[in-house]
Order: sequence, then C-alpha cells, then structure tokens
Amino acid sequence: MSGEPAPLRLPPDGTGAAPERPLRALRTPERAAVQVRVGPVTLGGPRIVLMAGPCAVESREGLLRIARAVAANGAQMLRGGAWKPRTSPHDFQGLGPDALELLAEARAVTGLPIVTEVLDPREVERVAAVADMLQIGSRSVQNFPLLREAGLSGRPLLLKRGMMTTVYEWLCAAEYVLETGNEQVVLCERGIRTFEGATRNTLDLGAVAVLKARCRLPVVVDPSHAAGDVAYVTALARAAVAAGADGLLVEVHDDPPRALSDGQQSLTPAQFAALAAACHAVAAASGRDA
Amino acid sequence: MSGEPAPLRLPPDGTGAAPERPLRALRTPERAAVQVRVGPVTLGGPRIVLMAGPCAVESREGLLRIARAVAANGAQMLRGGAWKPRTSPHDFQGLGPDALELLAEARAVTGLPIVTEVLDPREVERVAAVADMLQIGSRSVQNFPLLREAGLSGRPLLLKRGMMTTVYEWLCAAEYVLETGNEQVVLCERGIRTFEGATRNTLDLGAVAVLKARCRLPVVVDPSHAAGDVAYVTALARAAVAAGADGLLVEVHDDPPRALSDGQQSLTPAQFAALAAACHAVAAASGRDA
Amino acid sequence: MSGEPAPLRLPPDGTGAAPERPLRALRTPERAAVQVRVGPVTLGGPRIVLMAGPCAVESREGLLRIARAVAANGAQMLRGGAWKPRTSPHDFQGLGPDALELLAEARAVTGLPIVTEVLDPREVERVAAVADMLQIGSRSVQNFPLLREAGLSGRPLLLKRGMMTTVYEWLCAAEYVLETGNEQVVLCERGIRTFEGATRNTLDLGAVAVLKARCRLPVVVDPSHAAGDVAYVTALARAAVAAGADGLLVEVHDDPPRALSDGQQSLTPAQFAALAAACHAVAAASGRDA
Amino acid sequence: MSGEPAPLRLPPDGTGAAPERPLRALRTPERAAVQVRVGPVTLGGPRIVLMAGPCAVESREGLLRIARAVAANGAQMLRGGAWKPRTSPHDFQGLGPDALELLAEARAVTGLPIVTEVLDPREVERVAAVADMLQIGSRSVQNFPLLREAGLSGRPLLLKRGMMTTVYEWLCAAEYVLETGNEQVVLCERGIRTFEGATRNTLDLGAVAVLKARCRLPVVVDPSHAAGDVAYVTALARAAVAAGADGLLVEVHDDPPRALSDGQQSLTPAQFAALAAACHAVAAASGRDA
Repeated sequence: MSGEPAPLRLPPDGTGAAPERPLRALRTPERAAVQVRVGPVTLGGPRIVLMAGPCAVESREGLLRIARAVAANGAQMLRGGAWKPRTSPHDFQGLGPDALELLAEARAVTGLPIVTEVLDPREVERVAAVADMLQIGSRSVQNFPLLREAGLSGRPLLLKRGMMTTVYEWLCAAEYVLETGNEQVVLCERGIRTFEGATRNTLDLGAVAVLKARCRLPVVVDPSHAAGDVAYVTALARAAVAAGADGLLVEVHDDPPRALSDGQQSLTPAQFAALAAACHAVAAASGRDA
Repeated sequence: MSGEPAPLRLPPDGTGAAPERPLRALRTPERAAVQVRVGPVTLGGPRIVLMAGPCAVESREGLLRIARAVAANGAQMLRGGAWKPRTSPHDFQGLGPDALELLAEARAVTGLPIVTEVLDPREVERVAAVADMLQIGSRSVQNFPLLREAGLSGRPLLLKRGMMTTVYEWLCAAEYVLETGNEQVVLCERGIRTFEGATRNTLDLGAVAVLKARCRLPVVVDPSHAAGDVAYVTALARAAVAAGADGLLVEVHDDPPRALSDGQQSLTPAQFAALAAACHAVAAASGRDA
Repeated sequence: MSGEPAPLRLPPDGTGAAPERPLRALRTPERAAVQVRVGPVTLGGPRIVLMAGPCAVESREGLLRIARAVAANGAQMLRGGAWKPRTSPHDFQGLGPDALELLAEARAVTGLPIVTEVLDPREVERVAAVADMLQIGSRSVQNFPLLREAGLSGRPLLLKRGMMTTVYEWLCAAEYVLETGNEQVVLCERGIRTFEGATRNTLDLGAVAVLKARCRLPVVVDPSHAAGDVAYVTALARAAVAAGADGLLVEVHDDPPRALSDGQQSLTPAQFAALAAACHAVAAASGRDA
Repeated sequence: MSGEPAPLRLPPDGTGAAPERPLRALRTPERAAVQVRVGPVTLGGPRIVLMAGPCAVESREGLLRIARAVAANGAQMLRGGAWKPRTSPHDFQGLGPDALELLAEARAVTGLPIVTEVLDPREVERVAAVADMLQIGSRSVQNFPLLREAGLSGRPLLLKRGMMTTVYEWLCAAEYVLETGNEQVVLCERGIRTFEGATRNTLDLGAVAVLKARCRLPVVVDPSHAAGDVAYVTALARAAVAAGADGLLVEVHDDPPRALSDGQQSLTPAQFAALAAACHAVAAASGRDA
C-alpha cells in the first residue's frame, strides 16, 4: 500500500514470459523519464502537445486548408496519412509518395512538424526523409522488421497500441525499437477491441495510468479512433489529459461529411479549438502547465 | 456532423433487438434529465458527489473509524457492503443483517446517507428499511426479479454495469426498474472485462461519454474496481470526472493491508482527501461547480 | 509433459484467488466422476444425451407437436422455457406457471424428462415440483442466492456458463451448489462473448476439453445459442461431441420463422434428426457408445 | 430458415464497411471451391491433411529426427519455423536462413513438402525459393505489404487468423492476396484472444463452420496454439475435424521439455500418431474419406 503498484500482469494467453532483465521502457532508479523532441516540440514535458489533422492526405488544397486551420487553433504538430492500412483492398489506400510532398509543403506553410505513418520496412527511408516523426500504426505494433527498421532511421516514433495488444506486449514492441539505440519513442493509446459497440473502440485510460506510473516514455491518446463519433471525442480528450496523457492525436477535417475516411469521427476546426481550450483547462487543473 | 451521435450499436452477439419505442432511460424532447435525491444529496446536479467507504462492513469500530474519516475528507455518502457476492463460496461473504445495523449507526454518527448492496429479492424489504440507496451489483445487472423488486421498494438505486454488459443491455436493465415507476436510478460504470490484465478491469469512459450525451440518468464511476490497485485510482477518478461523471464510488480503508477484501485497491483516508481535492479541481475546469 | 495439464489459470481481472482446498468439482484421487440421473436418463455415462425442444413454451399445441417430434427423432430429454430472461422488458417473457403445466403434459405424452429454467429463488420450489431438472441460465451463473436455493431443492441442475464467465468462475459457481450437498450438477457450455460477430457467441470447446480432463461433472454443449444461425448448428454439435461433450442442448421448432424467440437458430425436426444421426456417428468414432 | 446463413456481421468497432462487390473468397454461383496443391498434397479435397513438426527449427539432428517421426506417423506435410516472431526481442528468434537449408534437407529425406513462415516482405523471395508453402503468421494477418508480396510469389499460402481478427477482416486480408491473382490460399484458425485463460487462446470452431458454409478456400486448424497444453490438443483436433476442417497444423517435438519454444503444447511422436488415428476416424464418421 506504499504507492508501489503491483507487477504488470501477463496476458491471459500466456505469451510473453517476463524477460529476466526489466524492459528498457520501464522506469528504474537508473533510467529516468524520456522526453521526445520533434522539431521545436517536446513530448513528455510539462505542456501537453496537440497533434491534429486529417485521417488521410486527400488533396493539396484540402491539406493546406486543414493544416492552417489546426495551426491557428492550437495544434503544435500536423498529422496526416500518406499510406493508409485499410481492412479491405477495395478501400482508399492513400496517395502514397505524392502525399509526402504535400505534407512537406504544409509544414513549410505552417511551421508544424509532421507525423505520418509508415507501413512497409522498404518505405522507411523514403518516409523518414520527409517526416519529423514516424507513426507505427495499430496493425503494425508487432511488425518486428518494421519496428527495427523504423528504429534504425533515428527518427522519433509514435507507436500506436494494437487493437488487442496488452500493455506488456506493447512495451515489448517498444523494446524492439529501444534495442536499436533509438529511445525517442512515444506511446499512443487509441482504444482496444472489446465486446462493446457503443463506441468504435474502448479507450483504455487505465493503461495510461499504468504507463505514467511505470514507464519512461511519453504517452499520448487518440480519442478520435476510440470514440468513432465526433459527439464523444472532446469528453474522451479531456479524460485522457486528466489521466495524465502527455498529448493528443486528433482527427480534424474542414468538411467531415466529405472525408474519404473517418469523417464520422473528425472534428471541424471550430470543434478542435474548443477541444484545445477544454484540454488546457483540465491540464492546468491536473497540475500541468496549461 | 451536427453533433447528433450515431444510434447506439447493438451488441455483437445479436441479443437485444431494439424495442420499437425508445428506452425510458434515453433523453428525448419529452423526457428531461433525472436528478436523483438521496437524503440531502443530489446526483445529476451541478456538483459531483463522492461516495466512499470500505468494500465490506467488517466490524463496528472499523466502520465508524472509516465513516468519520471519509466524512471529514470530502465524502457526501457512505458505502459499505453487508452481503458480498464472492466468486467462491469459501471467501468472506459479509456480515449480513448485523452490518445493516452498523451502517445505520455510522449514518447517525456522521450524517452521511448510506448506499449498500442487495443481492436477493427476498432481502430487498429488509435492506430498504435501512439503506438510503440500494446498490445492484455487477453480477446482478441482469437479475431481472431483483431489479423489479428493488424498483418497487421506491428507494433510489445505484445500478452497476456488469463486467460483460454492453451499454445497450445496461440501459435495458435500467428499463426493468423504470417500468416499476421508480426513476431514481443512477448508473455506475466500474470497468469491463477485456483481454488486458494490467488493471483489474478496463474502465470504459467512452460509455460515460455516450451516456452523458444520450441518457437521462446520472452516471457515476467506481475507479477502485476498475484499477484494482491504489496506484492508479486517483488518475482514473480525475479522468472520470473530466469525462462527465456525476460522482465517484471509492473504496477507502484505514488499514488497507488488513482489509478482508479489496485491500489492494483501497485508499487510505489521506489518499482519499487528495483524490477529492484533485477531482473538484478537474470538475471546475470541466465547467462544473467544484 | 506427462499428460498432466497445467493448473487452471486465474481470470485476468484478478478475481477469485484460488481457495486453499481444491474445488469440489475437480477430480481428485478421492473424488470420482459424477453421473447425473434425470429419470431414466444418465448424463456422464457412455452414451451422449440429446436434450431438445423449443426455446420457450409458446402454446399447448405447439409444445406437444414439437415434443412428439423430438421424441421421435432421437431426443432423450425435452427442453422448453417457462420464464425467459430477456435483455429488454418489452420482449416476450414466457408463459410462466402455465408453461409448467404444459411441460408436465408433454412429459406425460412423450415420456421425456423435462429441463426448464428457474430465474428467481422464490420460484425454485414451484419449478422443482414439476421439472425433472432445473436449468440455471447464463445470466444467473453468479446469482448466488438462486444457486443455493436450487441446490437445496435436491433436483439435478443444468448450470449454463455465463457469456463472460471464466472456467474457474464457473466451477466456483458450481461450488455454491455442491456446498448444499447436491452433486447432481451438469455444466453446459453455450458460447462466450468475444469481439467476433460472425456467430452469435464463440463456442469454447477448449473449455470442454479442460473440463473433461479436470472436472468430475458431466459437460453438455448448447450449439444453438453459440451458432445463432441454423446453418452452423450441426457442425458445432458434431464438434462438441468430438471434443468430449456428454450431451447436447438443442433448440428445435416445427415452424422456426414463427417462433417467438430464437427462430433463426432453431432446427426443424428433420434437421434435428440429421443432427442426431451425425452426432452418434461422431460419438462412436470418438470411442463412445453410439 | 432455408439453410441460407445470415450475412456475415460486421466487427463491433465499425471497421470494414462491406465492399460493394462480394469478397473473392466467398463462394458464389460463379466461383467454386478452391483446392490448394502443395507438391503431391491437396488441401480442400476429400482427405484431411496433417501438417506437423516443431515450432521452430532448432538444430539439424533435431529437425531430421522429428521430420522422420512425423512422416512415419501420418503427417503429409512438415512445418517448422525459420524466423519466429516473438513478443519480446529477448526471446529466441529462430535460426533464419540456416533453417531454410535444414528444412530443404528434411524434405529431401522424408519427401514431405514444407510450410514455413515469412515475416518480412524483403525475405519473401528467399523463403519462396525453398518452401513449398509460405505461412503468414497471426501477427502478420493485416501486414498488407507482406500479403501482396507473398501473393506475387505464386507460392501457396497458409494465412493464419490473427489473435484479434474477425472473420470478415480475415477474408479481407485474403482478398489482398487474391487480388494478386494467386488463389492458392488456405485459411488457418488458431484460436482468438478472449477473457478466458484456461486455454492459451479460445479456438473458434464457429468460424470454421461459417467458413465451410460460405468461403471457397480450404480451412485448417492449429489446435496446438489454441490449447497451449498438450493435454487438450487431441480433443481440439478431433473437434476441428468434426466441424469440417480440411486439415490440421500440429506442433510435434521429440523432447518437448527441451523445446526452445512451445514445449508445453508440443506432442511427442507417439501422441501425434494417436491424434492422427483419432482424427481419421472422426473424418470418416463426418462423411469424409478417412
């Protein structure tokens, strides 16, 4: 009862016997908390960081409009997908390399550093040449060749939790990156798959509490994929900050009903501005710098 | 994108075809939000309500000590189990009727209204004669005879979500009570069962966001059973308030290592006082009266 | 690797610390396998037992037609619900006491012993006066007052697994019955709740394998609720028998599209006859008497 | 009730809106069942196919001993991992390219075609030069670049279901392969992740029943990873065949306690011989050629 939490429990299917040495992602007397720097932005410091933008890069004009809007309304980083991993091969797969150039242009215009997903170890070099931060998506959390290649790029990484990844497995996935010598890793909770269908996924803020108590790496939360519906995004964003999250990854679109993907869960710029104000107030009330 | 959330999705196993008329628990133009009154306390009003106390009533002295401690540190209601539904018949089952008398004494001493669980439809009358609010526990959420009997008692009810209950099923369970004419029902989210074992259950604050957007009934959160470990309880309590919860149900014990049940997740009175202060700050930052 | 299975793992949410003495349901050198006798029928013996009938008793003529049809096509017991626990109070709740009389008449006509569900501890005496075997339904698996009352009736019990009950919790539920001195308990696997929606529930035949290796009580399987669709019932029934199940609980209706509940998963009498033949062939091939 | 199953339900998190054209993996009047040929072996024909061998290739002598043992006891194909995707980077990762040469030698000695996993799109060419069939492992089921590259190799593929993959998502993953023009795809059910911990995973034979009713591709089952314990493997293997599986993938080791991975669930050659006999008997009883 001394405030020392119990050891992390192993997953129910018995995978992942605890390695003999503690995972590098865990805080120990020898290993202090990590701050991750993406251009002028610091993740894991006193201020929360808002990353916002469209699910996918859809067009030059659309991206620039949204980038300017999120920059004007409180975002410190721009998100946007160039390659989209889609359940079905018949769904929109992203613009690929063309999107990378558009993201670079949006950065030049707004000054916001860019985070974008890489799916294929053969594309890491190309994406790392443009992106300020590489995103490893939920479906790739245990894509070990990709984790190693992304780690070796030297870029900061945003490692999303898989839909059915335990905290322990997630930290082991981070270990594949940390083993390359790259410690610039941010974990991103985005909701897990459960029996409940009222929201798209079940946001696991217990995992955020566990990580903030045990882990050295910054933790951000994606309330958009968890909620799946714009009506619930802001409440979950506030809750994430109150649970201790170091930042948020939020989908914003200037015309959500026309978005090629995830329109149902994308905020308008005005809704994003309100979210930013609400979250900074909660951050201040939770003992953080607003 | 008008801010109108999508319809509640049905559970994946196909139970519960939507009834033709909307559930009574849902807000409609005709049906306003419900406030639930338990003695001098109002749930669903501007202020958050803290209910605190031991998992189970264990002894007269212990209960009175804890009751005084939570009253002095911010609780507006006292919780404590007389009958404990335990997985195994070999675990401590509660003191039963004797505990009811002790709870009444603790109320007389502190002035705090009492919430306590009733397990058996044959015990409803006896428990309702003492308790200010009846708790229907997680394992009883679809115990339909108990729901009807508890509804007919006329007492306010605290209806915990089951470990395996969808939001839709939970609202249907509430419907069994509302059908008796008793609308004094508070919903209590306490974590669902998932594959993750880092916390005892997975707190579903998405459900809280959904209910605050759609449902007429007050919603409180039990961060203790969700966390399962005192190290994570306060972060989850803050998050629950930020998500919109109308109150919290928190396990407190003055000597957690010696508790007969749930010691690992019970706060000391000093920890509870800190939780109360943190949650009122978040409530104010979220636009509520502190 | 001696063929001794590993100890039962505890549920991920940490409930249910193993009691110091082994559960009474487990096989030990001192405790042999239990055979359960329901009139002329033996569960847990060399022959598989088929229990069949409608989801709910709907009318006298309908019940008698179906009872005669299943008796003529291989059933040794008749199932049928008098009280139906339904997610919503607006769904058909069963005919109640009138259905008990109709079940008694169907037994008189066909000679088949009856299994029917009891929901409320206050109804146990009334149901036990008619039924040959009491069913405890999935939602009641941790309704401890009901388990005790049903155990004390002295009737054989069919204890269905809950939708999200671990094997360990299920055996602890059985322990509440065994503690009353009544060992005539049959466990019924009926599918658990998971993320998958292609079937109504996920039939857990791994649990059947575990129970047949470790537990003293007979185990039967309900493929109807697991499948949720008549197209998959027979394949799951064969698989259950091959996994070692001692019998099956199958929904049969002579006019499935007009059934008041569960029509989608109810076999016609002709389909049931084919299922019975297929299952006896698999039983023989699995080393059982056909 | 015509025997036509209901449409596949979508996953609870709303991913994967059904594409307008039916998936290529589904049977339609225009598209007949696929048989997959791996050397002299046919999957999806009248006979069940047994694939057996060690979890990982550990040494030349060990592999040859096990290969000869499974060939002598009923296996038609040899399995064995060269690259092992492990939760932790500190666990044994496989012998890599050296293992490929050993597998080729084992094939030369026994005549059994080889199935082995490929993890990285950059390794597909090298693995396809040796293996008769490429395995896509559970963690790679939505590794879309890998699926495309493996499809383009022209080799038959064994596509394992992910721990967290719905049937619908699994068929969409197969679609990524089928889109390359390669239809030689076998689906492998290996258990899903649920709340239950009594077995390593929860074997979903409902999914096998659904696929045999709806899908054109052969379906095999891995009872070893589902059970996680040798005590339950044979019962699940029999059940899989009774549910309609076209074959089995079974872990066999001649000294399970000394296996570098999965020893707890590996059968000895004698246990495998008994499994083979039992499964052929069930196959015959289920209307297949033994």
